[in-house]
Amino acid sequence: MKAAVIGATGYGGIELIRLLSNHPEFTLHSVYSSSKDQVPATDDYPHLHEICPLPLMKIDPEKITTECDVVFLAVPSGASSFLSPQLLANNTKVVDLSGDLRLKNTEDYKKWYKKEPAEASTLEQAVYGLTEWNREEVKNASLLSNPGCYPTATLLGLAPAIQAEAIDPSSIIIDAKSGVSGAGRGLSQLVHFAEMNDNFRIYKVNQHQHIPEIEQQLQAWDSTVGPITFSTHLLPITRGIMATIYAPMKQPMSAVELHQLYKEAYKDSFFVRVRPLGEFPGVKEVAGSNFCDIGIDVDERTNRATIVAVIDNLMKGAAGQAIQNANIMFGIEETAGLRGFPIYP
Amino acid sequence: MKAAVIGATGYGGIELIRLLSNHPEFTLHSVYSSSKDQVPATDDYPHLHEICPLPLMKIDPEKITTECDVVFLAVPSGASSFLSPQLLANNTKVVDLSGDLRLKNTEDYKKWYKKEPAEASTLEQAVYGLTEWNREEVKNASLLSNPGCYPTATLLGLAPAIQAEAIDPSSIIIDAKSGVSGAGRGLSQLVHFAEMNDNFRIYKVNQHQHIPEIEQQLQAWDSTVGPITFSTHLLPITRGIMATIYAPMKQPMSAVELHQLYKEAYKDSFFVRVRPLGEFPGVKEVAGSNFCDIGIDVDERTNRATIVAVIDNLMKGAAGQAIQNANIMFGIEETAGLRGFPIYP
Amino acid sequence: MKAAVIGATGYGGIELIRLLSNHPEFTLHSVYSSSKDQVPATDDYPHLHEICPLPLMKIDPEKITTECDVVFLAVPSGASSFLSPQLLANNTKVVDLSGDLRLKNTEDYKKWYKKEPAEASTLEQAVYGLTEWNREEVKNASLLSNPGCYPTATLLGLAPAIQAEAIDPSSIIIDAKSGVSGAGRGLSQLVHFAEMNDNFRIYKVNQHQHIPEIEQQLQAWDSTVGPITFSTHLLPITRGIMATIYAPMKQPMSAVELHQLYKEAYKDSFFVRVRPLGEFPGVKEVAGSNFCDIGIDVDERTNRATIVAVIDNLMKGAAGQAIQNANIMFGIEETAGLRGFPIYP
Amino acid sequence: MKAAVIGATGYGGIELIRLLSNHPEFTLHSVYSSSKDQVPATDDYPHLHEICPLPLMKIDPEKITTECDVVFLAVPSGASSFLSPQLLANNTKVVDLSGDLRLKNTEDYKKWYKKEPAEASTLEQAVYGLTEWNREEVKNASLLSNPGCYPTATLLGLAPAIQAEAIDPSSIIIDAKSGVSGAGRGLSQLVHFAEMNDNFRIYKVNQHQHIPEIEQQLQAWDSTVGPITFSTHLLPITRGIMATIYAPMKQPMSAVELHQLYKEAYKDSFFVRVRPLGEFPGVKEVAGSNFCDIGIDVDERTNRATIVAVIDNLMKGAAGQAIQNANIMFGIEETAGLRGFPIYP
Repeated sequence: MKAAVIGATGYGGIELIRLLSNHPEFTLHSVYSSSKDQVPATDDYPHLHEICPLPLMKIDPEKITTECDVVFLAVPSGASSFLSPQLLANNTKVVDLSGDLRLKNTEDYKKWYKKEPAEASTLEQAVYGLTEWNREEVKNASLLSNPGCYPTATLLGLAPAIQAEAIDPSSIIIDAKSGVSGAGRGLSQLVHFAEMNDNFRIYKVNQHQHIPEIEQQLQAWDSTVGPITFSTHLLPITRGIMATIYAPMKQPMSAVELHQLYKEAYKDSFFVRVRPLGEFPGVKEVAGSNFCDIGIDVDERTNRATIVAVIDNLMKGAAGQAIQNANIMFGIEETAGLRGFPIYP
Repeated sequence: MKAAVIGATGYGGIELIRLLSNHPEFTLHSVYSSSKDQVPATDDYPHLHEICPLPLMKIDPEKITTECDVVFLAVPSGASSFLSPQLLANNTKVVDLSGDLRLKNTEDYKKWYKKEPAEASTLEQAVYGLTEWNREEVKNASLLSNPGCYPTATLLGLAPAIQAEAIDPSSIIIDAKSGVSGAGRGLSQLVHFAEMNDNFRIYKVNQHQHIPEIEQQLQAWDSTVGPITFSTHLLPITRGIMATIYAPMKQPMSAVELHQLYKEAYKDSFFVRVRPLGEFPGVKEVAGSNFCDIGIDVDERTNRATIVAVIDNLMKGAAGQAIQNANIMFGIEETAGLRGFPIYP
Repeated sequence: MKAAVIGATGYGGIELIRLLSNHPEFTLHSVYSSSKDQVPATDDYPHLHEICPLPLMKIDPEKITTECDVVFLAVPSGASSFLSPQLLANNTKVVDLSGDLRLKNTEDYKKWYKKEPAEASTLEQAVYGLTEWNREEVKNASLLSNPGCYPTATLLGLAPAIQAEAIDPSSIIIDAKSGVSGAGRGLSQLVHFAEMNDNFRIYKVNQHQHIPEIEQQLQAWDSTVGPITFSTHLLPITRGIMATIYAPMKQPMSAVELHQLYKEAYKDSFFVRVRPLGEFPGVKEVAGSNFCDIGIDVDERTNRATIVAVIDNLMKGAAGQAIQNANIMFGIEETAGLRGFPIYP
Repeated sequence: MKAAVIGATGYGGIELIRLLSNHPEFTLHSVYSSSKDQVPATDDYPHLHEICPLPLMKIDPEKITTECDVVFLAVPSGASSFLSPQLLANNTKVVDLSGDLRLKNTEDYKKWYKKEPAEASTLEQAVYGLTEWNREEVKNASLLSNPGCYPTATLLGLAPAIQAEAIDPSSIIIDAKSGVSGAGRGLSQLVHFAEMNDNFRIYKVNQHQHIPEIEQQLQAWDSTVGPITFSTHLLPITRGIMATIYAPMKQPMSAVELHQLYKEAYKDSFFVRVRPLGEFPGVKEVAGSNFCDIGIDVDERTNRATIVAVIDNLMKGAAGQAIQNANIMFGIEETAGLRGFPIYP
């Protein structure tokens, strides 16, 4: 199967190139960028020297759909809204990594993204690819909306508790931290090395566009879920997200019971590893891999749960989950091309 | 005034040496370590070459109290309990940076520290030195119990809201993050460079010994404060703590109002800087200084407050606040020796 | 083919586990440690949770050689000297990652390693596995001595120039820098996070045990090579080595000519990438991969060459090159299991 | 004495603000920026909140010289050439931190800086402020040209050996490494956090503009000094420079003798600390301070010296040395305002 990557100069795009180049079923056919034409990818990314001879090309939807079986869209939000429909010709399947097709409610999109939303028909067609909880729909999807990095960690961390109605759905607080690759390749003072090194910052307080995405999915599972508090921080690391999640238990429940519930929920999901009770994952323990590791505690003093979920934001939080979804969309083994171990240390 | 430092090989001790060596009123007289005798401090700390000729000496309480006006105890918990009483002779004043004298309830100490508590009379004498909120008592203290690093950031962040009964005292959640100097100089796999670099970890989930210290002070301000949820994480940085604090508002209150309340509460406190509304501090913005910077928001969607407090854990969280307290105990200007700007970048 | 790893708790061992677990021809059969017995590898390395069910076992050479086709020895120096001969039974092939079998001159070993050398017969049998320059011998090796991390970068960087007699062999200066994973997993103050973070150090000045290893190979290529100056520094990063090499040109030679000589020398070596003239590699551009990237300049002002070689010290500098050698020893494609791209960013 | 800082938004300027704000004799009077007017300095630097109320103002040379006793120029190269002469009115003294006034040979300036040089009369007036080796001239200077960061470390490291003719002046190789604050506050892909973190790079190979500055001073000490090889690398740290210097000994000389020569040379220089033989400084051991620490070895195998000099590039390599020079120019104690200890860890 031939795959194209659009938006190949961003960090999500470059990670797709890495994964597709060693995938047993997909072949990386061509790479595109809105800002380049016939420029070697190595100009931007010298680590690709001699191993990625493909030039970056101008985006030509017709050519792409004629030549490729699947297109990965790793473009900034705003671009997928109009590119996606054009790419759905000729039976080409589309996996969109942007935020454009995630929110079903266009008012939400306008409010949080401050951009014009996609057409209703496009949004309707888009399947939300939180793989572990939507495998059946993903199987039949032509247009896949890949979840955001923070929502992936948060939702995988909350799913079993929400679905089992174990926690109070009105008091969920998520304190999330991300490595700076999540902020992309665009230059800014915030992530200038001398300013971010040995630093730690909170940003977009109560204003992050991933809030409605998380709430939409939580409410799909349990319509009584109230507005969440969700904070995002920047860690002085390259890759990795940790979501530390707090919620009161609905009824008293022991840590053992909650842990059991999580083990059960993810027993068939290769990429979600529920850690033994008492053990919590560090972000480095999933670096470079598609795993989401989860640790759990219930504090008897407070009757509150603490749930910790970690992912590599460029893998399970972006390119890795996109490949996982594409695998399922094409009937390939879900883990194909994704069995690499975390890089440790 | 002559000052001694006991426990001079730890990071708290070495920071005291730095501050005392450039203090206008205190003179660094001598330094002590339980594990060394007549060994140059430069053996452990070559950065002191040529500027700190003092040898590390064996702890001799009688000699120390005869020769010095003030003793700073920067020893591990367990040691201050019995050293403090011995050092209170000859009008010497004692500033203890350990956790031994912070908890008034000896059962709490036993439970959280898993050690034998200090004598009741010693505990009674000890004044808790959260300077901004206890200046009057500090003035008259002979035995000063310096707050923990996490409690300092957390309590300064919560004080105005708790005292004004602005937030719900039963649902306080604190997600705290610290640089690894807070874990001390003792070697461990956890903070081995190759394991901590590019990593981020949660630790002591629901079990950190600073929990009862925070609750004790919060309850002193408002007896209705319930058990808090308090999580600690390790940042891959050397210095700095951020406490991200979440609580529902008791009554609806705007961010503007809450911010005003904080500005008012700290208007006379040089070392607490409440940032303009909409601005949140990064930990690097206080590095090397004694400042605690605070940012505030109230989310109208959730009616919850997000309060962010940052400090340098070795300064306002340890040695800096200890000097600040000592200044007050000796009637010196509170900021003496502490007016250094943050080191930025 | 079944593979065993001895010394599986060190960083070299854990990287071998990562590579062997995704190798198309080798199967990771069992893992051993001198200090453990029947302990899950995940106790030390939680990133292996659910993906490496093998327990660490006590080293039993007879059992190992009966069951396995190849053994990787990732033990500290001193241990391979006596383990290697025992493992060469039953046609098992041995790849030794330690420094024990690299120096042919036992006096050199005693002087630089300060330990007892291996038996002469063992040393004689051992083939030095600087793959790109010794493929023929490696093909027939039963006992493979894998090069050190610094020697790999240095020798690959110097080989074409030395062999072509382009540079003055009496004035070679190598300024090498390594990430701290090279210092191993053993705890030490030097690589305690708070001391190494935001730091940079030189160590073992003129005393590093890799000096005789480099000189031995250089002199094998050109017997007129004099003693080298070789300095090692610790970078505050996890992985990566850069060797910056300086030498006067023997005759005036342009950068273009020297560059051409390197392109030619490595044109058939997949893992050595000579960068375009004017471009120099950063260590991150090979992270997680088996590549050695080389950049070259000749300064017309000084008639000296500057040659820069970078590797991932745990890959091309240890486990990666070990697999590369094993591939050749077993007649497998040289790049099998090693085609993963660098992880960037 | 009233001091002004021009170029206050750069890292050199912000460090001058930090030092001048705690200086016993100089008062920070006003701060200027070419790109701002009447903008609070806290807009760019929130760490100055409440402690630096000065607004950034448009550069007005006449006003500045009327109001201030000394002006620090922390502007990019190219700007000082024309600003300096205008600021030398009214007995105002000028300390220029840029590279504009360092090279006496205007052809060199044009070649290496690729800009138009300053007027000959300005260059003639400018005194090169490598303080430890030029105190007498500095005393009488009105226009002070502050050395570059790399030259400061390199020249302090080489001075005693060159002046004593201990090393071969024709074969000097300097491998220098710098923290990224040296690259300034301007955004670039090179120092984007995700690209520089866990990375290490060489840059401007054989082309750094500090090469002629170093050679000019070396040749002033010994006219037989030949062209040097000087390489610059970027460390993933904020502050700190290490210059690792290599040179053959002219005559055989022991490490003990060379070390003694250095001890003697710097015995009266507070800010240069020659470490005990066998000990080498890490960059963190001078962080935040004005010290230059030096370690020395002579390798008997090669008869070559290895000399290591470390500084904080923003302190002894920029703002710190500028204040040190200003102190001398105004007859103040050389160490005034600069006695702060290194910040460790």
